[in-house]
Amino acid sequence: MDFSYSDKVKGLQQRVSDFMGKVVYPNESVYRSQLLESKNGRFSRVPPVMEEMKQQAKQAGLWNLFLPDSNYGAGLSNLEYAPLCEVMGRSLIAPEVFNCNAPDTGNMELLARYGTQEQKQQWLMPLLNGEIRSSFCMTEPDVASSDATNIESEIIHDGDEYIISGTKWWSSGAGDPRCKLLIFMGKTDPDAEKHRQQSMILVPIETTGIKIQRMLPVFGYDDAPHGHAEITFDHVRVPKDNLMVGEGEGFAIAQGRLGPGRIHHCMRMIGAAERALEIMCKRVESRVAFGMPLSKQGVIREWIADSRIEIEQARLLVLKAADMMDKVGNKQARKEIAMIKVVAPNMALKVIDRAIQAMGAAGVSEDFPLASLYAGIRTLRIADGPDEVHRQSVAKLELKEQAKKF
Amino acid sequence: MDFSYSDKVKGLQQRVSDFMGKVVYPNESVYRSQLLESKNGRFSRVPPVMEEMKQQAKQAGLWNLFLPDSNYGAGLSNLEYAPLCEVMGRSLIAPEVFNCNAPDTGNMELLARYGTQEQKQQWLMPLLNGEIRSSFCMTEPDVASSDATNIESEIIHDGDEYIISGTKWWSSGAGDPRCKLLIFMGKTDPDAEKHRQQSMILVPIETTGIKIQRMLPVFGYDDAPHGHAEITFDHVRVPKDNLMVGEGEGFAIAQGRLGPGRIHHCMRMIGAAERALEIMCKRVESRVAFGMPLSKQGVIREWIADSRIEIEQARLLVLKAADMMDKVGNKQARKEIAMIKVVAPNMALKVIDRAIQAMGAAGVSEDFPLASLYAGIRTLRIADGPDEVHRQSVAKLELKEQAKKF
Amino acid sequence: MDFSYSDKVKGLQQRVSDFMGKVVYPNESVYRSQLLESKNGRFSRVPPVMEEMKQQAKQAGLWNLFLPDSNYGAGLSNLEYAPLCEVMGRSLIAPEVFNCNAPDTGNMELLARYGTQEQKQQWLMPLLNGEIRSSFCMTEPDVASSDATNIESEIIHDGDEYIISGTKWWSSGAGDPRCKLLIFMGKTDPDAEKHRQQSMILVPIETTGIKIQRMLPVFGYDDAPHGHAEITFDHVRVPKDNLMVGEGEGFAIAQGRLGPGRIHHCMRMIGAAERALEIMCKRVESRVAFGMPLSKQGVIREWIADSRIEIEQARLLVLKAADMMDKVGNKQARKEIAMIKVVAPNMALKVIDRAIQAMGAAGVSEDFPLASLYAGIRTLRIADGPDEVHRQSVAKLELKEQAKKF
Amino acid sequence: MDFSYSDKVKGLQQRVSDFMGKVVYPNESVYRSQLLESKNGRFSRVPPVMEEMKQQAKQAGLWNLFLPDSNYGAGLSNLEYAPLCEVMGRSLIAPEVFNCNAPDTGNMELLARYGTQEQKQQWLMPLLNGEIRSSFCMTEPDVASSDATNIESEIIHDGDEYIISGTKWWSSGAGDPRCKLLIFMGKTDPDAEKHRQQSMILVPIETTGIKIQRMLPVFGYDDAPHGHAEITFDHVRVPKDNLMVGEGEGFAIAQGRLGPGRIHHCMRMIGAAERALEIMCKRVESRVAFGMPLSKQGVIREWIADSRIEIEQARLLVLKAADMMDKVGNKQARKEIAMIKVVAPNMALKVIDRAIQAMGAAGVSEDFPLASLYAGIRTLRIADGPDEVHRQSVAKLELKEQAKKF
Repeated sequence: MDFSYSDKVKGLQQRVSDFMGKVVYPNESVYRSQLLESKNGRFSRVPPVMEEMKQQAKQAGLWNLFLPDSNYGAGLSNLEYAPLCEVMGRSLIAPEVFNCNAPDTGNMELLARYGTQEQKQQWLMPLLNGEIRSSFCMTEPDVASSDATNIESEIIHDGDEYIISGTKWWSSGAGDPRCKLLIFMGKTDPDAEKHRQQSMILVPIETTGIKIQRMLPVFGYDDAPHGHAEITFDHVRVPKDNLMVGEGEGFAIAQGRLGPGRIHHCMRMIGAAERALEIMCKRVESRVAFGMPLSKQGVIREWIADSRIEIEQARLLVLKAADMMDKVGNKQARKEIAMIKVVAPNMALKVIDRAIQAMGAAGVSEDFPLASLYAGIRTLRIADGPDEVHRQSVAKLELKEQAKKF
Repeated sequence: MDFSYSDKVKGLQQRVSDFMGKVVYPNESVYRSQLLESKNGRFSRVPPVMEEMKQQAKQAGLWNLFLPDSNYGAGLSNLEYAPLCEVMGRSLIAPEVFNCNAPDTGNMELLARYGTQEQKQQWLMPLLNGEIRSSFCMTEPDVASSDATNIESEIIHDGDEYIISGTKWWSSGAGDPRCKLLIFMGKTDPDAEKHRQQSMILVPIETTGIKIQRMLPVFGYDDAPHGHAEITFDHVRVPKDNLMVGEGEGFAIAQGRLGPGRIHHCMRMIGAAERALEIMCKRVESRVAFGMPLSKQGVIREWIADSRIEIEQARLLVLKAADMMDKVGNKQARKEIAMIKVVAPNMALKVIDRAIQAMGAAGVSEDFPLASLYAGIRTLRIADGPDEVHRQSVAKLELKEQAKKF
Repeated sequence: MDFSYSDKVKGLQQRVSDFMGKVVYPNESVYRSQLLESKNGRFSRVPPVMEEMKQQAKQAGLWNLFLPDSNYGAGLSNLEYAPLCEVMGRSLIAPEVFNCNAPDTGNMELLARYGTQEQKQQWLMPLLNGEIRSSFCMTEPDVASSDATNIESEIIHDGDEYIISGTKWWSSGAGDPRCKLLIFMGKTDPDAEKHRQQSMILVPIETTGIKIQRMLPVFGYDDAPHGHAEITFDHVRVPKDNLMVGEGEGFAIAQGRLGPGRIHHCMRMIGAAERALEIMCKRVESRVAFGMPLSKQGVIREWIADSRIEIEQARLLVLKAADMMDKVGNKQARKEIAMIKVVAPNMALKVIDRAIQAMGAAGVSEDFPLASLYAGIRTLRIADGPDEVHRQSVAKLELKEQAKKF
Repeated sequence: MDFSYSDKVKGLQQRVSDFMGKVVYPNESVYRSQLLESKNGRFSRVPPVMEEMKQQAKQAGLWNLFLPDSNYGAGLSNLEYAPLCEVMGRSLIAPEVFNCNAPDTGNMELLARYGTQEQKQQWLMPLLNGEIRSSFCMTEPDVASSDATNIESEIIHDGDEYIISGTKWWSSGAGDPRCKLLIFMGKTDPDAEKHRQQSMILVPIETTGIKIQRMLPVFGYDDAPHGHAEITFDHVRVPKDNLMVGEGEGFAIAQGRLGPGRIHHCMRMIGAAERALEIMCKRVESRVAFGMPLSKQGVIREWIADSRIEIEQARLLVLKAADMMDKVGNKQARKEIAMIKVVAPNMALKVIDRAIQAMGAAGVSEDFPLASLYAGIRTLRIADGPDEVHRQSVAKLELKEQAKKF
């Protein structure tokens, strides 16, 4: 047991942090300004500064760090990637700069692991190069998606094709003008055993029958140009070969996809919380109320202490989960993954909320990234399984382990 | 002691509720659509349905209910108004429909109480008629406004005029095209005793030197066409008579203004929480996960129970505070007012957050009023004094009272 | 609606408070000393000062205030009794002084409502006079008693007698040397409909076959001489006429008994919390740490403010529940009763816990009543239905009411 | 970075666990019975089973594991000892069995580090052998001991002796008939610089002038025969050489003593929480309410999940603190030590409280160790610095570190 980062990790951590300081933070406001200038609406183009930053990151060798497979990515373990991903989580625009942003990361992992050579050539390579983007179409408006077996969309076999129908929403990234690929989850066989009904299929976004109905706001934010789309699929036809792995494999693939996706989110939320704490600490030194800087007031100090305490604990649990995923695999680590999926967003929301409170009204505005971080992270108590579902999983596994002792 | 509403109140409550059901709720989506259709930006016009609803409310005799002074308003006591205001709080657009929306209510009270005949004629009458709107310019970006003595704006006497300079933000309502009046707080004498430095003055919005710099978002909401403005005042000249009451009276007037304003906010938040609980209860009956409607799941039931419990307690404390304001005056009731100012927003945020969680992703979107209610109410843990300042006041008063016993 | 106490109540409140100040508080330490001096164990005799105080209370006309039935008691409504009961809750020894202590109050109500003339003569009269004491034998060690249908004890009809067998525990008051009567709940017909299986029967404590196995500690307190007994009933025979109302009525009677019992507990807990807050406020004025009295430190002030806020809200909800019980009956008020049963102990525990923390080590000792109040009140999150069961009841009732709207 | 225990630790962990299973748990009830049988009061003798278990632990080589100094103890690092200490924390009687119980551990460390050869011979050796016991006399009844500079006791130089006067309380272990040594903290020079006024001195318990006034209860528990004593020192004379290190060194020595002491407490509390969770899990499988085992009820499952989540996080932070103490020293690790001092007791209290609630009334009784663990751990939110003082330290250090970035 050892709680120090390896030298390799410390080196990468330094490089990512330096890059953030030199390139990313100063361009946060540039990105926002460029977004406002888009003439044909906020989803019509990507702020040019993004592509510039991506080139710089690529040149700096800070690219695709997320991918454990060293044929395609940096070949880092989860434990090595975690502290880097954390740093990226400090800025809402950073993950894309390093080509490490959801849902593309999860989609790239899927393609790397389950894709055919043709699928890799067509979709994985441009995604790895940051040339195109992708979306993951799983959640549906009419059912509780926390229970994946509720899915109602259909993927019907018809000769050399599959015909896809259904409505999806919260398809994040589908608003991006560069988005070319949708990975779609639906039922190929509603009569099969509960976890064998679903399949996953690759759908080019321009296919006939696909319509983006609207971009869903998150606490008033449209998250342009990325966005969260509601999409209707009306008898959309794609070639048979677009099906991933085989019919009935959808649930299993999704489970595999969610593990790393969840931990990446958690890593980023540690970073977001650190950023919030940093902003809070800076602010309270400079503001005076009732004759004292806020930083000398006991209540404010409690907020700082509790924030530090909660961040430290959450980080350690995320790192431990990463270590377990590396050592015993995602399945054996599922209790730890469920735990961090509960811990990280709740922790980050608490820290950010305290920072907002310490900032006064500025905290809820656009002058600081706090409110937008809050909104984004609030969705992560729901997405990829809500808190309450993960808590039930943890309890079930705990009860099972305890029962062995009796 | 009696916990039943009077017949008078029950009658009014019924009428307001009926009006909400028939007129307001069905028009919430109309209002939003009309806002989107505004060609010259979201702050360029008020959705026409608003003026239609206002006429209907006026005709129904549900107008200016907030004003205890029966010369101008309905002459209801705080205790009588509370349950009506609560019902209005169920919809973000409702308070304006009944001409009971902040900051106009507070401004009307100021004018009714402290205005000269001319000021009443020029500003109070059109406000009471719902013809114009107003804003209150107190908070400043550069200082902690939780401590009102921090104010830096200047109001300098110059012959028959005052010259006003400074930057204000979070001037709510200033974005509205109907907004004509700004009530401005600044220092006339920085060398006077701490609470005698400030004065309050009436400033027509078209006066030279006034510039609206931007509309501040709350989380991602712009709250158009109402809005929260950052405004610069650059040597703005207004006639001497625009000063309210006298030099040095600003702090005292503000205190008087804040009492009723705070309790109105609290009443509305009770209603907002009730709406959220209603939405949650409806949803959980219809959603099924893991083989059971959500409404049968123990954890969801705890959310419902805790929400009901917290709402009931908060409502009672708000009503008690209202009763005290009526019986012993705002000053004697200041401990109770401070308490509800802490209780109501924190309660409402908890209830709404649970509702969001129960809704799944729909909860953070525009399909339900939950996220926008959350964002709006989150600001009320900061505005009119942050939680932590009110808690310190409660403690100070408590320690003083306890000390009498020892 | 009116939040002021009536003059009648104010008068009684003053009298009870004065009595507390003159008689009860000064004798708390006397009572404790006398208890320590008992030669044959702490359950062998009642500290003599108790009977002296009882005589004084009787003479002062502050006796049996709890009983709404004016034939036997003071004839006060629940709303009138609540503030008096609250004052008694400030001292662990006070309720008995006024003959208003559980479980005798509940048992007296049972006898007054359901007893025959003979039963009243034999048991109710000496209880009303404070001459004997009684216990209620419902909870069993081997089953989850939160679900009353789990009860396993038997009451078997045998000619002119019933034969009683089973084990009960947490029979509070059974340790008292003056305890003469046990009210026993068991099954007369295990095959009847779920809520018609139970019956309630009067059992003189000296009957053959009854054995007190041990006195259960609460945390480390034995609560002598009152105590919480584990009692075995081994073929205990009592006359047929000792059965209350009729076979199968046990569950219904118990429900009726629990309503007032629960609200009395809640009222007392408000008083206990007030006492704790008072002790805390006094202490923090006099202790200095890091150069400042504790009372000037922001964090301590938050504890005081939050305590005051939570007490106020809990009291109002208790009073509202009392008002409803008076106006619409215990059954219609069951949601409110369930709510206060959750609110009051949790609130009191929080307030007392803060007080303990503010006291330093003295807080957990015998030098202040805080730790013993904490322990006693902790049991009330379990007794008479645990929090989680009451929350489920509140939710069920809420969902039912909400469903009417849809 | 690596989250697995080393093989050495795993081996020891297994041995300690096995010993607990074979020797300690089965003797918990024996110990309690023997304690009740003590004829001359609960502080008159140590239950004989304790000495038997100690001999077995010594023979098993599980003795003095706490002491990093390999001349006297096991030579384990903090990181290695932590998981062993955790296991001992599962039973209130276990630490003494392994000669690893407070306050003796801290006192042995003091003597090993600062003692002269004579002092080591006289006191350290018998302590290491488990032949005698000791107490630490620091806390005083009349001042807030959270601020160590408040100490009022005097140590006055008089020729070849020091004369000691003052009142101490919460001198844990002083009730034990085997207790021979008191380590006393007092002021040798009240006029010196604030942290140079205090000195520490060794006082044999039989010295004239020492009187144990009473044993203080903790939530009703007397913790016999260990106990928490209130002791008066009335002109107690000890030889000059009994002073540790030198005059004015008391504060510094105390700081050094508290670091390891605090982390040991934290380790044990992890174990106590694990025990509580285990008890809860076992119970809820067997209890049925409302037609379902408690273990299938969502709310109970949330308690289990949250408990597991909180334990994991707390353990990781404790281990990280231990790792830092080993690598960079206690002083550099003081922020981490302060953090765990807040985290561990609050976590353990929450877990134990949920377990109590899940047990029903049995939870507060002596039938399970829950209530006694709760009471003991509740004192650790106060002892060795209350939560609020540690939070202020964390905040101060955090603000300092953050300031370097600005």
